[in-house]
Amino acid sequence: MRWANLALVLGEIAAGPCSRAAVAASTGLTRAAVSSLVEELLAAGLLTEAGRSAPNGRVGRPGSELRLSQDGPAGLGGEIGVEHLAACVVDLRGEVRSWHRREVGNRGRSPAAVLADLAELLRLAAEEAGLHPAGLALAVPGLVRSAEGMIEGAANLGWAEVPVATELRLALRAAGAPELAALPVEVGNEANLGGLAEFWLAGRPDDFCHLSAEAGIGSAIVIGGQLLRGARGFAGELGHLTVWPDGPRCACGARGCLEQYAGETAVLRAAGLTGVGGDWVALLAERAAGGDREVLAALAGAGTALGIAAAGAVNLLDPQAVVLGGGYAELGEWLLPTMRAELAARVTARPWDDSWLSVSPLGRRGPLLGAAVGVVRRIIADPGAYAGG
Amino acid sequence: MRWANLALVLGEIAAGPCSRAAVAASTGLTRAAVSSLVEELLAAGLLTEAGRSAPNGRVGRPGSELRLSQDGPAGLGGEIGVEHLAACVVDLRGEVRSWHRREVGNRGRSPAAVLADLAELLRLAAEEAGLHPAGLALAVPGLVRSAEGMIEGAANLGWAEVPVATELRLALRAAGAPELAALPVEVGNEANLGGLAEFWLAGRPDDFCHLSAEAGIGSAIVIGGQLLRGARGFAGELGHLTVWPDGPRCACGARGCLEQYAGETAVLRAAGLTGVGGDWVALLAERAAGGDREVLAALAGAGTALGIAAAGAVNLLDPQAVVLGGGYAELGEWLLPTMRAELAARVTARPWDDSWLSVSPLGRRGPLLGAAVGVVRRIIADPGAYAGG
Repeated sequence: MRWANLALVLGEIAAGPCSRAAVAASTGLTRAAVSSLVEELLAAGLLTEAGRSAPNGRVGRPGSELRLSQDGPAGLGGEIGVEHLAACVVDLRGEVRSWHRREVGNRGRSPAAVLADLAELLRLAAEEAGLHPAGLALAVPGLVRSAEGMIEGAANLGWAEVPVATELRLALRAAGAPELAALPVEVGNEANLGGLAEFWLAGRPDDFCHLSAEAGIGSAIVIGGQLLRGARGFAGELGHLTVWPDGPRCACGARGCLEQYAGETAVLRAAGLTGVGGDWVALLAERAAGGDREVLAALAGAGTALGIAAAGAVNLLDPQAVVLGGGYAELGEWLLPTMRAELAARVTARPWDDSWLSVSPLGRRGPLLGAAVGVVRRIIADPGAYAGG
Repeated sequence: MRWANLALVLGEIAAGPCSRAAVAASTGLTRAAVSSLVEELLAAGLLTEAGRSAPNGRVGRPGSELRLSQDGPAGLGGEIGVEHLAACVVDLRGEVRSWHRREVGNRGRSPAAVLADLAELLRLAAEEAGLHPAGLALAVPGLVRSAEGMIEGAANLGWAEVPVATELRLALRAAGAPELAALPVEVGNEANLGGLAEFWLAGRPDDFCHLSAEAGIGSAIVIGGQLLRGARGFAGELGHLTVWPDGPRCACGARGCLEQYAGETAVLRAAGLTGVGGDWVALLAERAAGGDREVLAALAGAGTALGIAAAGAVNLLDPQAVVLGGGYAELGEWLLPTMRAELAARVTARPWDDSWLSVSPLGRRGPLLGAAVGVVRRIIADPGAYAGG
């Protein structure tokens, strides 16, 4: 009961700085109970008391203003991309306090080599932020068994059955960061974490679909404020929705999957840029902005395929919004027109409002933000476990 | 609290006949509390006491066996089809006690004329069962606003914005059944009710997709034991999932929807049976059983399209099962082979196990069963509201 009330009070303050009196009014707890719970949260370093708030004319004596602490427990996030690694720290408010990214081709590298590099970035990010991380969460481009800390398969890396949590701990010790090696580790799929970041940080409604280009095409389906995981944890494979049944053979074995029209390789091929290395999203955006007709046509074609697949998801799920995220966010200007046309033509419960399709403000930062913010959100949801632990 | 305990006790007995002692053991309530709750449920006519149960060697004195009453409140269901009307009564156990069906072409008829016929069937069904219905639920082929008792649109009937609950009450009074006109009326979409019937009566898992041919193609998506309704109530429009983007124009305005390959009109056309009236499902089944090559090819083609669409739903939702229901259930023998082939080729999280696709045992009885059983399930879930009302 006390733990539940700690969460109630902290949740109220997390929604916006407020006084003890305001917390009591909105939670229905007595002033005395709120004061005692607030003392506990202050002692645990989760709150700070930020001077007296100005008199505001509301009923009740204005108290000093309580806020989430900027110096309290933090979330440490790590990301393994096919072409990059990244690490960041967010504070309890979800504000980014450090962010390190390194371009590195990880395709076909061993997990040990990749995790050694990632451990170094994590150490740098934690040092720079100067906060105490309460947990570490990893965004990876593949299917995971989160509870076991396992990557089940990451085709774009060439990895299968990697005990990534255990191996990362070894790497962190080797990198001279034993305090980070001692943290609880969560492993999540990048597309799911990108979708959660969108929900937590970009004010998305309770029911939406998030389509993103990262390694391959990912999607996250949020229903009633919950990520849809599916019976086997495989929900959201929008990249393998059939677009043209007789289309090109996909790496998954099927024909005409969305990835064959809107995935990195397919779009680069259609743009006449096969084999170009580096940041494909930035390259396409630059050429498209410069009026390159082949690139514009390739992106329009990708938008058409994305629209057909998104219309399928909308017809099945009836979400309140469709969000284009990850690398697609930076290409939205050129993808949206054809994508909108397909949605308008194919969503059957009309009217389909153009404004329900929008572009993520987080873009490619989404998955790593989702990983790190997830750590602090778990503390806010259950401060008793943190304070008591 | 007492209401919650009434539901707890009744739910236990609904799961299988048992004694007061067994109810106490499994619910954790005291024997005295159980006895008092059982008296209330007996008085309300929800339970019967069926003689002494045999000594069974378990700890505790065997008591007399309690069961759901066969003579208690019943569920009255009505169904408006494009080519038929039907009505049934189920008792508290969900057993069918009467069932009346009439073939009648309702396309383009006025709601008043259709509801007059339906009222007559409902009166007959209620009379034959000789039970007291506690509520009336209607399965309709269209989009509904259930709380308002409205059909928002039923394209196959040519209806829009029909206050069907109100009009049905008028028709019931005109049919000399004022006691039925006084019942609470629920209005549901036939595909959703068919899916719920599958969940309630056919032992489906908590996560499955139900595809059915009724008027058009319907589907019901169950996630975590709950029907997915969607943000605007339009989830499950699988019939308008794009199968071939450049395919024939659909009545919905889009091209290449599943209905253009696996809907009634499309299959009959492919089978060379355009314009044939009567029971199209029975006709196709008869011809297919007789080895009619054109019909077999038409059904194989429909199975291919159903498989492509079902694979899309599986890739997005990762359900535990896909169920072929409604009219498709009677055609399963000829649809399944090609449908299975597409699922095997296109579901990306492998292995896809053939056994996860199965045929509904309820078939075209599903929607009406779902309507009527829903009424008694609501009583069992909240007997206090019934007994106290």
